[in-house]
Amino acid sequence: MNKTKRPEDSLTIMNELVLPNDTNTLNNLMGGRLLHWMDIAAAISAQKHCNRIVVTASVDNVSFKQPIKLGDVITIEAKVTRSFNTSVEVRLDVWAQNIPSGTKVKSNEAYYTFVAVDQSGRTIPVPELKPETTEELELFAGALRRRQLRLVLAGKMQPDDAVELKALFAKS
Amino acid sequence: MNKTKRPEDSLTIMNELVLPNDTNTLNNLMGGRLLHWMDIAAAISAQKHCNRIVVTASVDNVSFKQPIKLGDVITIEAKVTRSFNTSVEVRLDVWAQNIPSGTKVKSNEAYYTFVAVDQSGRTIPVPELKPETTEELELFAGALRRRQLRLVLAGKMQPDDAVELKALFAKS
Amino acid sequence: MNKTKRPEDSLTIMNELVLPNDTNTLNNLMGGRLLHWMDIAAAISAQKHCNRIVVTASVDNVSFKQPIKLGDVITIEAKVTRSFNTSVEVRLDVWAQNIPSGTKVKSNEAYYTFVAVDQSGRTIPVPELKPETTEELELFAGALRRRQLRLVLAGKMQPDDAVELKALFAKS
Amino acid sequence: MNKTKRPEDSLTIMNELVLPNDTNTLNNLMGGRLLHWMDIAAAISAQKHCNRIVVTASVDNVSFKQPIKLGDVITIEAKVTRSFNTSVEVRLDVWAQNIPSGTKVKSNEAYYTFVAVDQSGRTIPVPELKPETTEELELFAGALRRRQLRLVLAGKMQPDDAVELKALFAKS
Amino acid sequence: MNKTKRPEDSLTIMNELVLPNDTNTLNNLMGGRLLHWMDIAAAISAQKHCNRIVVTASVDNVSFKQPIKLGDVITIEAKVTRSFNTSVEVRLDVWAQNIPSGTKVKSNEAYYTFVAVDQSGRTIPVPELKPETTEELELFAGALRRRQLRLVLAGKMQPDDAVELKALFAKS
Amino acid sequence: MNKTKRPEDSLTIMNELVLPNDTNTLNNLMGGRLLHWMDIAAAISAQKHCNRIVVTASVDNVSFKQPIKLGDVITIEAKVTRSFNTSVEVRLDVWAQNIPSGTKVKSNEAYYTFVAVDQSGRTIPVPELKPETTEELELFAGALRRRQLRLVLAGKMQPDDAVELKALFAKS
Repeated sequence: MNKTKRPEDSLTIMNELVLPNDTNTLNNLMGGRLLHWMDIAAAISAQKHCNRIVVTASVDNVSFKQPIKLGDVITIEAKVTRSFNTSVEVRLDVWAQNIPSGTKVKSNEAYYTFVAVDQSGRTIPVPELKPETTEELELFAGALRRRQLRLVLAGKMQPDDAVELKALFAKS
Repeated sequence: MNKTKRPEDSLTIMNELVLPNDTNTLNNLMGGRLLHWMDIAAAISAQKHCNRIVVTASVDNVSFKQPIKLGDVITIEAKVTRSFNTSVEVRLDVWAQNIPSGTKVKSNEAYYTFVAVDQSGRTIPVPELKPETTEELELFAGALRRRQLRLVLAGKMQPDDAVELKALFAKS
Repeated sequence: MNKTKRPEDSLTIMNELVLPNDTNTLNNLMGGRLLHWMDIAAAISAQKHCNRIVVTASVDNVSFKQPIKLGDVITIEAKVTRSFNTSVEVRLDVWAQNIPSGTKVKSNEAYYTFVAVDQSGRTIPVPELKPETTEELELFAGALRRRQLRLVLAGKMQPDDAVELKALFAKS
Repeated sequence: MNKTKRPEDSLTIMNELVLPNDTNTLNNLMGGRLLHWMDIAAAISAQKHCNRIVVTASVDNVSFKQPIKLGDVITIEAKVTRSFNTSVEVRLDVWAQNIPSGTKVKSNEAYYTFVAVDQSGRTIPVPELKPETTEELELFAGALRRRQLRLVLAGKMQPDDAVELKALFAKS
Repeated sequence: MNKTKRPEDSLTIMNELVLPNDTNTLNNLMGGRLLHWMDIAAAISAQKHCNRIVVTASVDNVSFKQPIKLGDVITIEAKVTRSFNTSVEVRLDVWAQNIPSGTKVKSNEAYYTFVAVDQSGRTIPVPELKPETTEELELFAGALRRRQLRLVLAGKMQPDDAVELKALFAKS
Repeated sequence: MNKTKRPEDSLTIMNELVLPNDTNTLNNLMGGRLLHWMDIAAAISAQKHCNRIVVTASVDNVSFKQPIKLGDVITIEAKVTRSFNTSVEVRLDVWAQNIPSGTKVKSNEAYYTFVAVDQSGRTIPVPELKPETTEELELFAGALRRRQLRLVLAGKMQPDDAVELKALFAKS
């Protein structure tokens, strides 16, 4: 049950069409709708890694760079970057494509974390992730720093103990 | 158009009932659904401050502490904490209440930012916010630090330039 | 369980954004969609009073005065006006606000009634309501007349027995 | 355009399946969801009579007699009972059917009124209704009394002027 | 339980209003949305014949002749054409009506098949259908040929064994 | 605009989670909901090939082999198999995966056809498809036979003229 997995084992691709109810009065996709789709894609990815029911534990800072229009096609790619004891971090890459006009732009990157639970909702250990490519190794390393930031922001870790995170600010 | 506003001018309260389609197979509210509701509540709040159409610019780190169940009532309170040139930060407080069993727990706190735009989608200046109470003044001060963190995470600011943010890690 | 409650104990505020699927081909909010939102707001309010699951028993005459547009913000305030043996009457006040253009109009007033039930769906007594302000006392008194009208319209009371209601027509 | 119509010209039948999101935690259909379906059925019926876009003007007192369960089939029949200058009254009959267990119960009767409008939303005259059967003639006559009740309740008519309505209470 | 039924016992009429979320960027109803409504109408019809829970077994070739617009009223009529051991074939006729402009066009015809199941999901015999009118007899006869085509297309029957179907091509 | 495309240019992958509202009272995915998702996935795929708005022209016979459960993950893969003058055929492969229990079954195969249109809804020529692999060449060849079957079923072609289709039955 707890065997090692590779990032591609959890690769999940989701395409969604931006419909009227997903947009505001400027016909732009509302941010919350996209966050909802990203959560579903990330949850499927986390499930694939854990082979368990998973529940969203957190979403990291997400910024929305440019308007996405009614009728655009959203592509979300999700992949586990690192597993901790009973949780995993999932990275999401999101593109918006206007097919008739031939444009495709990167819309977002984000990290969601999930906790694996059993049928009664108790947390349960998850398989280890074994990164292989350079990109996977970088995401794996960064996951530790992002986790420290989450814990500091949630008031569960002293900034002083966030060793890898502090390094970001230390050079100055 | 650009007169000063107070935080309570933008207070927005939203109650939602957790319905079956909002839940996973454990009958718990899915995180993405809550992020979606929070975005709508925050957008209404930002609109009230700006008297303009607003678009979501970012959502800060959100963590989900405990499961929210089918049939629970979600209460979201949103209020603008600080305005910048063409954007505002909105703080959200979220509670989940199971009325028949008489429980009400704090579920989340979060910050969303919005940009005000005109009918053609161009950014446009927003009214200034004037905090008054101690709590409002603290949220106003913290907004600067959170903004620096957003800019650093989005790669738009050097950690070295995030003066207020760096102070968090400096004492060590 | 059956202690006295005050009207403000059941105050429920709901904000909703009018989205495309809520509108007809003139981009006006459809009446049925509003009735649906009002039912959810009123049910939450009734739950707060009863601390029980509640089911809709009736909705009184509702009239829709003016069109509400796509993009408007609906604010619904609900509060229990009177409790009977196993049921409560909830008053709803509804406003429609077009924030960018700075307008806010009263859209509706309405009364919904709910029956409190246990887990098997059997009706169950509800706490008494103790009105205090002049407005609350008026709503409390009127609730009896509205209840008689409901019973007459449902064929469960003879017009002759509807003493308070008859008084409305008696002076002529 | 303004020729006489018969009640059956506006007959509209709608069947809906009660799905999980339509129900509360007791697996019973929520009243507001039914009011929403009834509004759509009634609007189609009013459109058929008027050959115009119509907007909901009011819904009369509706009472919900017994719980409708998840998986039940709702049948709504709507028919215009009377036309006034620029508006029509639509009567709705609603049944809930549990097909596997072979039960079908009358759930509701209700009256919705609609105003006919042109493309700019201005009210516009509607065709006359010509009732023929005994039942149609009774509904036609009753429509006047119900209209008076609506006007009295909306504060647009003095109880004293509601001649037909007053007769209900006069015999006592 | 297994008594003979007539086609009109399963007649089901459904009216739906085409809302923004049902349409593409040309404001035309999306085919998949119509297939979804047709499935619900057909399932209700099959339930009426079988007095059982039913599950969709197949949908035959459906073609969409002309665009259906936002605001149109869809009318779906469904009726069982023939029963087999544990399944039924349902014929659907679909019209699209633009009421303000007074047009009504036939949009589709289709055949869905359903299997009757008990509470544990096991297939179960269904009542026999007894066609009476000429049209009902023709639909009954054609059902056999359509069933053979389904079996051939699903790879469960050799073209050679599809006697009635082959006759279509034999005359050449 | 009209350059040759390869099948992989239109590859579209969609993952969806089966939620309560997608299921019947046995907690099984309703067929119509799946047909709706398949239509969206296929439309995105057709758009990618045509770089145009597309409208559904037909769906071929689809059969549903086994129940798909609440909580399952649906994976839909869509790819254009052949282009005709102004239309394309898209093949869909659908899997249902229960991740916690580690099962993944093939649920469906289907063919949808789409017509490419300009902004006024007029049909417009589409790029040619150039199949390369053995599987792509087979799908390309079969598309002609499926097209003849569609035309025969729609009454637009005499069985006698459906040369490739007739061959299926000819050997007997």
